[in-house]
Amino acid sequence: MSSTYGECLKLSIFGQSHGAAIGMVLDGIPAGLPVDTNALQAFLSRRAPGNGEYATPRKEADQVEFLSGLADGFTCGAPIAAVIRNTNTRSQDYASLRDIPRPGHADYTAQIKYGGYQDVAGGGHFSGRLTAPLCIAGGLCKQWLSLQGIRIGAHIASVAGKEDLPFDALSPELDAVAEDFPVLSPKAGNEMRKAIAAAKADGDSVGGIVECAAVGVPAGLGDPIFGGMESRLAQILYGIPAVKSVEFGIGQRAAACKGSECNDPFSIHSGKIVTVTNHAGGILGGITSGMPLLLRCAVKPTPSIAKLQRSVSLSKMEEVSLKVTGRHDPCIVPRAVPVVEAAAAIAIFDAFLADRREIRR
Amino acid sequence: MSSTYGECLKLSIFGQSHGAAIGMVLDGIPAGLPVDTNALQAFLSRRAPGNGEYATPRKEADQVEFLSGLADGFTCGAPIAAVIRNTNTRSQDYASLRDIPRPGHADYTAQIKYGGYQDVAGGGHFSGRLTAPLCIAGGLCKQWLSLQGIRIGAHIASVAGKEDLPFDALSPELDAVAEDFPVLSPKAGNEMRKAIAAAKADGDSVGGIVECAAVGVPAGLGDPIFGGMESRLAQILYGIPAVKSVEFGIGQRAAACKGSECNDPFSIHSGKIVTVTNHAGGILGGITSGMPLLLRCAVKPTPSIAKLQRSVSLSKMEEVSLKVTGRHDPCIVPRAVPVVEAAAAIAIFDAFLADRREIRR
Amino acid sequence: MSSTYGECLKLSIFGQSHGAAIGMVLDGIPAGLPVDTNALQAFLSRRAPGNGEYATPRKEADQVEFLSGLADGFTCGAPIAAVIRNTNTRSQDYASLRDIPRPGHADYTAQIKYGGYQDVAGGGHFSGRLTAPLCIAGGLCKQWLSLQGIRIGAHIASVAGKEDLPFDALSPELDAVAEDFPVLSPKAGNEMRKAIAAAKADGDSVGGIVECAAVGVPAGLGDPIFGGMESRLAQILYGIPAVKSVEFGIGQRAAACKGSECNDPFSIHSGKIVTVTNHAGGILGGITSGMPLLLRCAVKPTPSIAKLQRSVSLSKMEEVSLKVTGRHDPCIVPRAVPVVEAAAAIAIFDAFLADRREIRR
Amino acid sequence: MSSTYGECLKLSIFGQSHGAAIGMVLDGIPAGLPVDTNALQAFLSRRAPGNGEYATPRKEADQVEFLSGLADGFTCGAPIAAVIRNTNTRSQDYASLRDIPRPGHADYTAQIKYGGYQDVAGGGHFSGRLTAPLCIAGGLCKQWLSLQGIRIGAHIASVAGKEDLPFDALSPELDAVAEDFPVLSPKAGNEMRKAIAAAKADGDSVGGIVECAAVGVPAGLGDPIFGGMESRLAQILYGIPAVKSVEFGIGQRAAACKGSECNDPFSIHSGKIVTVTNHAGGILGGITSGMPLLLRCAVKPTPSIAKLQRSVSLSKMEEVSLKVTGRHDPCIVPRAVPVVEAAAAIAIFDAFLADRREIRR
Repeated sequence: MSSTYGECLKLSIFGQSHGAAIGMVLDGIPAGLPVDTNALQAFLSRRAPGNGEYATPRKEADQVEFLSGLADGFTCGAPIAAVIRNTNTRSQDYASLRDIPRPGHADYTAQIKYGGYQDVAGGGHFSGRLTAPLCIAGGLCKQWLSLQGIRIGAHIASVAGKEDLPFDALSPELDAVAEDFPVLSPKAGNEMRKAIAAAKADGDSVGGIVECAAVGVPAGLGDPIFGGMESRLAQILYGIPAVKSVEFGIGQRAAACKGSECNDPFSIHSGKIVTVTNHAGGILGGITSGMPLLLRCAVKPTPSIAKLQRSVSLSKMEEVSLKVTGRHDPCIVPRAVPVVEAAAAIAIFDAFLADRREIRR
Repeated sequence: MSSTYGECLKLSIFGQSHGAAIGMVLDGIPAGLPVDTNALQAFLSRRAPGNGEYATPRKEADQVEFLSGLADGFTCGAPIAAVIRNTNTRSQDYASLRDIPRPGHADYTAQIKYGGYQDVAGGGHFSGRLTAPLCIAGGLCKQWLSLQGIRIGAHIASVAGKEDLPFDALSPELDAVAEDFPVLSPKAGNEMRKAIAAAKADGDSVGGIVECAAVGVPAGLGDPIFGGMESRLAQILYGIPAVKSVEFGIGQRAAACKGSECNDPFSIHSGKIVTVTNHAGGILGGITSGMPLLLRCAVKPTPSIAKLQRSVSLSKMEEVSLKVTGRHDPCIVPRAVPVVEAAAAIAIFDAFLADRREIRR
Repeated sequence: MSSTYGECLKLSIFGQSHGAAIGMVLDGIPAGLPVDTNALQAFLSRRAPGNGEYATPRKEADQVEFLSGLADGFTCGAPIAAVIRNTNTRSQDYASLRDIPRPGHADYTAQIKYGGYQDVAGGGHFSGRLTAPLCIAGGLCKQWLSLQGIRIGAHIASVAGKEDLPFDALSPELDAVAEDFPVLSPKAGNEMRKAIAAAKADGDSVGGIVECAAVGVPAGLGDPIFGGMESRLAQILYGIPAVKSVEFGIGQRAAACKGSECNDPFSIHSGKIVTVTNHAGGILGGITSGMPLLLRCAVKPTPSIAKLQRSVSLSKMEEVSLKVTGRHDPCIVPRAVPVVEAAAAIAIFDAFLADRREIRR
Repeated sequence: MSSTYGECLKLSIFGQSHGAAIGMVLDGIPAGLPVDTNALQAFLSRRAPGNGEYATPRKEADQVEFLSGLADGFTCGAPIAAVIRNTNTRSQDYASLRDIPRPGHADYTAQIKYGGYQDVAGGGHFSGRLTAPLCIAGGLCKQWLSLQGIRIGAHIASVAGKEDLPFDALSPELDAVAEDFPVLSPKAGNEMRKAIAAAKADGDSVGGIVECAAVGVPAGLGDPIFGGMESRLAQILYGIPAVKSVEFGIGQRAAACKGSECNDPFSIHSGKIVTVTNHAGGILGGITSGMPLLLRCAVKPTPSIAKLQRSVSLSKMEEVSLKVTGRHDPCIVPRAVPVVEAAAAIAIFDAFLADRREIRR
């Protein structure tokens, strides 16, 4: 498995934070699908570093170069390969991390797994920077899903406990989401910004929750058991660094409900079968119901903080205190929003490709 | 994907609730691993129907027959196939469900996906009964993991909002879990039982949360990005019907934390590197840290309730009211406990098989 | 990989020659495909042991029992599981083989790989008997392909150097193939029979070649590079025990040709693009051209012979002479014919399911 | 499947003949394996175009750039991505091919599959140029296999019917193979050169056979049925354009043998179990026996010839005559030799990674 995902499409993500380049190969895409590279670049800019006062000062243009898979603006049936060159690298920031692992990072586990051969600079392959190629693949899938009338959007549901309004489960307000700091409620957005600024001033960081919705998803996507939409989505969403919880519909709240409260009654609306509520988040038995698909991901606070922390020296086998230097976001939740959209788009497009109902016909 | 899971091992689950049999094929298992069929049968009995006052009255012995893969009590290197015959079937209970889907069930989505060809009896392939073959595979993986010093246990963390004590994140009390109604606090267990009885008396059902822990997991299992332990575990855990949330460590609570609170400081304990806290649930960067692996799954209330519900007639395209008959659990959480253990065992054993560090040597 | 095959469909084959049962699980099949169990049983009888004077005297009815995946005679979208009980087992024939491996068999390599834990009886999982479940899957795929106008047939191209007429590469005579001893030329068939009888009388065995053709295959199936039809077909054809060569079209003869001789010129025939010759065997760049798909498999002689052979005692590490007892075919080529058809049908149906051209529309 | 291969390793190949670049991603490789980039470049130069009088005049340095996966000369555990820029492109040569498909090429089948969206320049993704990234992956695997004492070599077994000496099946003369025009018999090599020169002078092309051997392969690699070494090797070998036959050991000749001739008797040689002959090519039941692994691939003559050929105009639906311009090899067999080695190395290293016998210990 490692860095490869997909049933019909095969997505392979590569690169290290301070290596020559990061990128992806997306195989299994039908020929003849249009690609809008400007729209893709705009999508990528939503997660690019160096946006706004709260992000890392590391500046990366994240300019995408397509190496293969396109001809005259359409997919040509060959695997799509795209790369982003790493331009602004400072590997000297990280030399000491081979000996003293940063709490909350993969430094220690990578050291154990790779026996010291891992690329430690900037977290190497574990860096949040690897979400950029995920956004290349996801941005493309979003474009292709929109051709099928499927639209995906997300917003910051909470930061440091400050909560935005939730999506309307029956008709999520995808267009109401501001792109610079994506929330539904400007007032909630301001409270979140204050919390981020406070954490930054304190040399600390904060986490949050991203809520994502997909509308126009036809009923019948997904498969039983391990191929259910929750399994497909959770596998890729947990591929996003810092995600520690994934839930669908009312998710964890279902545990405290009665069946009579949790079940979504079926009804008919303008000749179409719908559910009156959407506690299931548009998924029943792992298969889409035609109602909006709803999910939430909890993102832990950025582990890189300026505060003094306890760690150990692997060489000396003694406890030491560590001050993480380098350039870091006090809150990655805003930048995680397009990444969650991208991951959801990939999983949904893959399930769409895997759907073979027309064989019966 | 569908009903197949795994990287090194390949698990294929088959069967319908009221078909001839349910079963599984587990391929990719090394030869020479011992199999204790009595222990496996005992593990299966923990999720078998007809246990205790709150479970469905449908009685099934769930007697496992191995068709292949074993020789003289050890795995022989060939795929392991095992079946459970369905004995106590009542398909006449379900005839009407082809026309009137049950809220909260897969009846409607299966109808759309399979165009009426699906086996509706008892939910067919979507039935919770398919967790029995999952427990065959998981029960075997649990035995083989124990040979590696890896132990897995779970308990009912909550039912209807009544909360059990949580596992100690540094040393989960796996042995303290009662097997008949697995909780850490007998007092909490009694409150849960009352809530279940009340729901049953009311023709309703209740949900809950299962907490699972694995101890003795070596550091270094799992892979970056899509092959991370969270991705591996979430994909299979979401294969369990009714699971709507999966979280690791402090999970969703991380969203409201500061980095300085969430990070687990490294320390040295009796010559071994440990973390002082275990908010990460034993996983950093998708790779196990050597600390206990901790996860929680929210299980929605059984959708089959005796209360009158709103649904639609697919043939008449009109709204109708529905009273679900048949035999159902007012709360499936107790029976879900071994299933979560089984799913976790499969994912961890697969990651263990996938670990190739010795190649360097 | 092991005993699992497929891209869109997932075929898992299990069982040992003298175990409780052999069988298969076929996952990923769309719902609503009809299944003719009588036609399937008739197809299986073509490879069943105990047919005709030259086959092993071991009698097996090879009665298929479907455990799941069907409802009312159609696929229901759930994995299809089917088993054949082993009835006529004689494991005492094989006890000594754990120490003295039979030349040409997997006894030695299985001993090394499985460290003595393998099931040696009748070759265990390596037995030709495992081609029966392959024929269950292939027989089903043949039925479904025929609904798409795709027909598959094969014949004995040679036995012991005695050659049948080849298929007409532009219009293979699928219907001309006799089913009891499938050849195009009765005269060649008689010579083959004589060669088999002579080998049997001599306590020896003979090999041969199976030629297989598929007509009505639409142009455009298959994928570039590793997903080409040759790759897909060769992977599964080499899953048939005793196959040592797989070639397509003129195959090995292409090596001695000039490009001007080997290329198939394009032409137009009744408004349809065709090739004037079919040296490519209906595959260009790994993708079907719409011309008949043609392949040949060389089958080595049955390694089990009555003649005295040289082997070694693994326990004593000394050379010994071995006389293989038990019940064996002097020539398995006739029984291999339906197996090759089955393997081809599985690969072609999988490629058919994987074809997603309609996405553009 | 498409352009992705592997069980434990995941190889994804991308690029078009005249696109920006060609390349590969190799995922699933353990960390800590050394990489000799000079040796790799030397290996690639063996298949590079523009070598010698008989190759295409298209000059490409085939300079490899590693984008990820390496740190300080060792694998770092992250996916290895490498690209080769296309420098010497002449897409105007190919404009007409969208309308008039070249016999023996994928032009027509690609047109049908991709509906005109395929990249036609130089055959696009179907170009033999895509064997360069295959050689990057294979060259790396060859280096890593040599660390395990496994050596792989190949030679031109025949061109235009002129036959080289075969490898000694018990101890293949890997070192005796000349690298510029790899044959065992210089005399045979000269006859082959003459045949190629004659074909070139005639505006024609010739095919041939590549024989490949691997020595030092431990017994026990490979899996039953679809995971057998023949299946693994054939799948990737058929990913090489122009390969139309793959056989192992004596291959097709086994069809005319008696069992008493074909079986390889076991014997003991200096305390090691060996076979007296090696007709099986080092594979029994799909699993390596410890004897040299032997295979042969038939390569059809280059379809691009200067001679006038018959084809059709897809737009006018009329027959036309076609003269293929551009730069082509009169014989690709010499350049195919390292490609076959590369493919074999990938399959064997993947099987080596998949071998989990130590779990028993």
